[in-house]
Amino acid sequence: MQIYFAGSIRGGRNDQEIYSAIINLLKKYGLVLTEHIGDRKLFVTGEARDNREIYDRDMQWIEVADVVVAEVTNPSLGVGYEIGKAECRKPILCLFREQEGKKLSAMISGNKNLTLREYKTTIDIGRILEEFFSRF
Amino acid sequence: MQIYFAGSIRGGRNDQEIYSAIINLLKKYGLVLTEHIGDRKLFVTGEARDNREIYDRDMQWIEVADVVVAEVTNPSLGVGYEIGKAECRKPILCLFREQEGKKLSAMISGNKNLTLREYKTTIDIGRILEEFFSRF
Repeated sequence: MQIYFAGSIRGGRNDQEIYSAIINLLKKYGLVLTEHIGDRKLFVTGEARDNREIYDRDMQWIEVADVVVAEVTNPSLGVGYEIGKAECRKPILCLFREQEGKKLSAMISGNKNLTLREYKTTIDIGRILEEFFSRF
Repeated sequence: MQIYFAGSIRGGRNDQEIYSAIINLLKKYGLVLTEHIGDRKLFVTGEARDNREIYDRDMQWIEVADVVVAEVTNPSLGVGYEIGKAECRKPILCLFREQEGKKLSAMISGNKNLTLREYKTTIDIGRILEEFFSRF
C-alpha cells in the first residue's frame, strides 16, 4: 500500500510534530511517499528545489498512491489542492483537531466524498487509522 | 460571464478588504457568484448554514462558472480545494501578494495549469484583471 500523506508546509509548521507522529503510525500500513512532511528541519519556506519540480513530483505521488491521508487542522493551500485533485479517484482520510475559535473549511467538513475524523491525541489517531485501513 | 471568486473564510479574514476590492473590480467583467466572500460581516467562523449546503452550493457555482479568480495570499484549505477541483476545466487566475518570510505553496507556484500574477496594490490588480479578461 502506497500512502500520500498531506500536511501544511508553507501554510505553517505549527503541527510538524503531529505530522511526524502520524507518519510513524502510517508506516504500519504501507509506504509513506511524503515522509519529508514530518521533518523538523523542513521549515515554512519549504523545500530548496524548484517549485515546478515539487509540483510534478507530488502529482506523480498522488497518481501512484492507493490512499491519501491529510491532516487538515492548519489552513493550507497545498493540502486543500491535493484533496481536490485526489477526490473521487482515491480514498481520502482527513484528520482534524478541534481548536478554539476555529472551524474547519466547509469544503472539507461538508464534503461527502471523503472520510473526516476528529482527534485529540495520537492515541485517537492510532484508532482512527486502524479503522480506516481495515477496509482494504 | 460568470465568475467564481475564491478567498479565505475559515482560514482567516485578514484580507477581507482586499477580497471586497477585487470583487468590485471583477464586476466590470461579469457576475461574481461568491460576492459574500468580501463581506466584512462574514467572520472566520463562516456562514451560519449547514456545511453540506455550503459545499453543494459552492460546487454548483464552480460548475457553472466561466472562470475562477482566487486570492491566494492567505493559506486556506477551501481556496486550495476549489483550485484543485476547477483545474483543467476552467481558466484560473491566482492573485498573490508577497509577504516577508512567507512563500506561496508549490501546488500553486509550480502549477502550469493556472495563471499566477503577483500584485502589490489594487491598481496592480486592476491591470492584471484587464489583461486576463481580454482573452475572452
